[in-house]
Amino acid sequence: MISFESDYNNGCHEAILRRLMETNGEQATGYGLDDYCTAAKAKIRAACGCPEADVFFLVGGTQTNATVIDAMLQSYQGVLTVDTGHINVHESGAIESSGHKVLTLPSHDGRMEAGELEQWLHDFYADPTYDHMVFPGMVYITFATERGTIYTLEQLRAISEVCHRYELPLFIDGARLGYGLMAQGCDVTLEQLADLCDVFYLGGTKCGAYCGEAVVFPHHNAPAHFFTIVKQHGALMAKGRLLGIQFDVLMENGLYFKIARHAVEQAMRLLDAFVEKGYQMYADSPTNQQFVLLDKETIERLEKDFVFEQWYPVGDMMNCRFVTSWATQPSDVDALIAAL
Amino acid sequence: MISFESDYNNGCHEAILRRLMETNGEQATGYGLDDYCTAAKAKIRAACGCPEADVFFLVGGTQTNATVIDAMLQSYQGVLTVDTGHINVHESGAIESSGHKVLTLPSHDGRMEAGELEQWLHDFYADPTYDHMVFPGMVYITFATERGTIYTLEQLRAISEVCHRYELPLFIDGARLGYGLMAQGCDVTLEQLADLCDVFYLGGTKCGAYCGEAVVFPHHNAPAHFFTIVKQHGALMAKGRLLGIQFDVLMENGLYFKIARHAVEQAMRLLDAFVEKGYQMYADSPTNQQFVLLDKETIERLEKDFVFEQWYPVGDMMNCRFVTSWATQPSDVDALIAAL
Amino acid sequence: MISFESDYNNGCHEAILRRLMETNGEQATGYGLDDYCTAAKAKIRAACGCPEADVFFLVGGTQTNATVIDAMLQSYQGVLTVDTGHINVHESGAIESSGHKVLTLPSHDGRMEAGELEQWLHDFYADPTYDHMVFPGMVYITFATERGTIYTLEQLRAISEVCHRYELPLFIDGARLGYGLMAQGCDVTLEQLADLCDVFYLGGTKCGAYCGEAVVFPHHNAPAHFFTIVKQHGALMAKGRLLGIQFDVLMENGLYFKIARHAVEQAMRLLDAFVEKGYQMYADSPTNQQFVLLDKETIERLEKDFVFEQWYPVGDMMNCRFVTSWATQPSDVDALIAAL
Amino acid sequence: MISFESDYNNGCHEAILRRLMETNGEQATGYGLDDYCTAAKAKIRAACGCPEADVFFLVGGTQTNATVIDAMLQSYQGVLTVDTGHINVHESGAIESSGHKVLTLPSHDGRMEAGELEQWLHDFYADPTYDHMVFPGMVYITFATERGTIYTLEQLRAISEVCHRYELPLFIDGARLGYGLMAQGCDVTLEQLADLCDVFYLGGTKCGAYCGEAVVFPHHNAPAHFFTIVKQHGALMAKGRLLGIQFDVLMENGLYFKIARHAVEQAMRLLDAFVEKGYQMYADSPTNQQFVLLDKETIERLEKDFVFEQWYPVGDMMNCRFVTSWATQPSDVDALIAAL
Repeated sequence: MISFESDYNNGCHEAILRRLMETNGEQATGYGLDDYCTAAKAKIRAACGCPEADVFFLVGGTQTNATVIDAMLQSYQGVLTVDTGHINVHESGAIESSGHKVLTLPSHDGRMEAGELEQWLHDFYADPTYDHMVFPGMVYITFATERGTIYTLEQLRAISEVCHRYELPLFIDGARLGYGLMAQGCDVTLEQLADLCDVFYLGGTKCGAYCGEAVVFPHHNAPAHFFTIVKQHGALMAKGRLLGIQFDVLMENGLYFKIARHAVEQAMRLLDAFVEKGYQMYADSPTNQQFVLLDKETIERLEKDFVFEQWYPVGDMMNCRFVTSWATQPSDVDALIAAL
Repeated sequence: MISFESDYNNGCHEAILRRLMETNGEQATGYGLDDYCTAAKAKIRAACGCPEADVFFLVGGTQTNATVIDAMLQSYQGVLTVDTGHINVHESGAIESSGHKVLTLPSHDGRMEAGELEQWLHDFYADPTYDHMVFPGMVYITFATERGTIYTLEQLRAISEVCHRYELPLFIDGARLGYGLMAQGCDVTLEQLADLCDVFYLGGTKCGAYCGEAVVFPHHNAPAHFFTIVKQHGALMAKGRLLGIQFDVLMENGLYFKIARHAVEQAMRLLDAFVEKGYQMYADSPTNQQFVLLDKETIERLEKDFVFEQWYPVGDMMNCRFVTSWATQPSDVDALIAAL
Repeated sequence: MISFESDYNNGCHEAILRRLMETNGEQATGYGLDDYCTAAKAKIRAACGCPEADVFFLVGGTQTNATVIDAMLQSYQGVLTVDTGHINVHESGAIESSGHKVLTLPSHDGRMEAGELEQWLHDFYADPTYDHMVFPGMVYITFATERGTIYTLEQLRAISEVCHRYELPLFIDGARLGYGLMAQGCDVTLEQLADLCDVFYLGGTKCGAYCGEAVVFPHHNAPAHFFTIVKQHGALMAKGRLLGIQFDVLMENGLYFKIARHAVEQAMRLLDAFVEKGYQMYADSPTNQQFVLLDKETIERLEKDFVFEQWYPVGDMMNCRFVTSWATQPSDVDALIAAL
Repeated sequence: MISFESDYNNGCHEAILRRLMETNGEQATGYGLDDYCTAAKAKIRAACGCPEADVFFLVGGTQTNATVIDAMLQSYQGVLTVDTGHINVHESGAIESSGHKVLTLPSHDGRMEAGELEQWLHDFYADPTYDHMVFPGMVYITFATERGTIYTLEQLRAISEVCHRYELPLFIDGARLGYGLMAQGCDVTLEQLADLCDVFYLGGTKCGAYCGEAVVFPHHNAPAHFFTIVKQHGALMAKGRLLGIQFDVLMENGLYFKIARHAVEQAMRLLDAFVEKGYQMYADSPTNQQFVLLDKETIERLEKDFVFEQWYPVGDMMNCRFVTSWATQPSDVDALIAAL
């Protein structure tokens, strides 16, 4: 069986394992205060063009979202997202469990529209009863989105401007940041993304690491005592070096981006094959997640050799997801294309 | 510099790294539903003598405590612990952040006394205003404790009996369970411990793994939808195999206990040397943490070659902690003994 | 100025004030354990036809919603409501602040549709990723709704059946229960409503009292230690007699329903006048809240003598709300009709 | 039966009932935005000598404590109190339920000692692991305390100074503020108290009102959007005029203080009688709560005619509480004295 089920099916990049081997006998202080973390942070700051950035390593995505959002909101504030946002759907209520409402805007293939955001904010403050409501406290978007799409620089800038006008921090969930930035046609650089937001993370779990998300406050603007907030959320790894080492390896000589590009290339090969063979794509994705409508017969046939997710029915068809990753073998894509 | 600072200063047992290497190319489904986790759970059930036990893998200790306690308490209940308990001191309010009060009893070198627990419960229900108070909802103890001490079987049984009489689940924090069970003079077996409590965990982070805590509900008594509760707490690792593989290796042929015994043996060598040379021990610890009173001069001398923690002043002296682990080299202990 | 702004603009029914005067010198124990509360509870049980019902008095609506919902949900569960539900819009995130997500269905003039509820639940459990999501834990509807509408007995029964099939408690927010049950054409009795749900409240604040909401668990099914949960939510009034006395008076000889019927009668007079004079109603309300589309000119003219709320623009018009209450003077309605 | 059970056994001061009667027919806007509230706030500002103070009316004590504390703490902070503090004992975990730990210092007959507070803060920041702990975020004291005692101006000033030095807001729970300020020998004025703290409340429920606590931020320092936070906590009364009217009456011509002084005078008569007749007082209280040690026989004898609380056994004796209030009849005190 060949799996296109997700981008967290494989282990980690072998360069990471090698480094873990090399460093295993060394002793290091805990909680991210070790030299590996320090080195990894320096590389991340350099890559973002933010020499003053505050960088923290957390373990997983849901945890990171809950911790960052809780840290930046006041008790009477909620977080704005599109309705398909991960925090609104697939985090078992982690945001609400720390006391905050998730406020929703319509999703456009996973994206938020700056104009709709502005209208929502305008309407909120125009409502005479707004102080009986949940205040907007930050804006959350994903890059790449849950539908595999990305924002253009212009779209990102427009959202950022609305946020600044309303004094709302902008948070970019980068669980798949590598695949987003390396997407076909992406005109956003990491430096630009860092500059336009108030906090984002470089996802490790889905982009080559075993685990780990690198939270970046690009403008030296981490909330006071963020370390303690991370600890309170159970997100502080005792042997923080495990995260530091992974990011140190990934950020070395652009490995993170190289392997993300590989995944995107394989996904584009798949996309081309789907289109060429007349399949209908569900969303127009330039990243490592491809959504395609398949009929029952095709699904049954493909399932004999391939693993992939069936998301939900669309008319008589099923919206199916095929995901490539840093670990995808071109030969596996060949096999799938042949089977289509 | 030789470090006795903590038991999370080293990487992980090399057998784990070897297994990570061997399995790295394989694909596995996420969230702990993979074969490595299944195998590790089977080994844990066997070691506990609980074929029906529910087993879950979480990442770290604070997270595990917060998740388990939140899962088992009703909203109006708190958790009982001794005042030195990790949840009361060093978790940045993780328990309270999920809405629950930490109720405290006096610590006896880190241990709870069954008689005091019973008295507390009796007094609570005898107080005519108790329904204006926080109800006790579970009992939390650590094994080994934060002071390096352990419970005898009789002590543990007494606490368990009080808990059952008051219908309170007993939760044993086993962040250092290996060192506790392998302690000098310990008369408690893993099977007995599992039988006497309602939930406990086998700590991985401090006992040979890079990360991971194996939560065990010995009597097939996991709370409904515990998986979702783990997710909500940000404690569900996407690449769950990282935890499964580590525990699978550690539980193979008793490796977990062998390496814990090694740590205890080195600690006992240290203890004997301290005592022989006339140092005053602060707590009577049969485990891998040794607490000793040192004067300024000695501290300054030792700090040239060794790393260790200064906990707090006791009179003119300082209570210092020396920790051994699965990774401690006998030659490092030799060096420290020579320096004393 | 004559106010149709809301149903909490007046003091309280004068019979209540008289009773407060008569009883003022008496001494009574606190926290709702007094004889006035006992008497009021008996009258409520009788009116509901539920001799076994558990009854509690809380102070206000938001508080009551937050307390009841928190008491009946597990930590991983959310509450289902239509998007216009009070808990979703106008409670400043009180539900989320106790850790629970508000899950939304479309509103049909304020009402939930049983078919849509069933579909939502079916889809939820059909989703293979549902254990990464927030579980539905109860269903919340309002009677009368925020749009002034009510449910027919058939509609209510259909919702109740879906709830029972999915083992979800049904909670009816009765902040305006009197106006709902006394609505023109209402075919639901208090006994039937009590029988079909798991918990509801008789709203006092908007229906003749100064404050107070009577929470009823009709089937002797209050959650364990609900008293303590009320206290934890800051909803336990020390001088509980203030609530007991008010409900004792309101439930005597059907006063609660008589004064609600009066309000509805005045609202119907208003509705008839609106319709007769060619105004367009926004929602088809048989209760004490009337929504009508007015143009700027009319609004300006009416505002000279009358107070009412402008909700939001609908095209060129404004959706305006006129509310009658137990205290509305027929002559005031005459004046408004004359001014139309 | 004559009750000395508590200071919330009676209705409210008759001047309040008269005013409720007079104003009942008037219409007023909701949520504390009415003229009665405005007038009451002005009188409170004047009495405090704080023309810039922010004033809010909430319903009850537990609710007020939870709302104020949650509003002023960051998520990683807890509140410091003595162990006998109401928030630590008798609020069913309301503080923890909003996510914050209650940090405790020893009680000295209900009082906090400035020196011990300073030592605690010093030790906290001297602990090298403090960022794994709950940060102190505010200091909570009660005036009068739960033991009936009060602070001298010097004691209060010392606490205030420590708070300012550590940039911690000082919160004074004034559920019994009237009885505290009117206590025998009290050398603190309302103006001084307001000046020395960051927030306090004038308790209404126990001092003449049916319900209501007036929260005062003396230095125009209410947290942003405190109104919304009050709403979120379910503490915003729809018919806010009920609170405004009560405080307007109580603050008129010093009525609040006159009736508090009456209660204290009756308590002092009782105290003198106890002492004269050789009873042993448990705490040295100059306020309306008197604690005395009684033997079984005396308790049985007194219980035939009087209601009072038995707190807890002290050796062979029982610590019993006798409470006077604004409503206590001197003849009732005569009767009790005669019975001693």
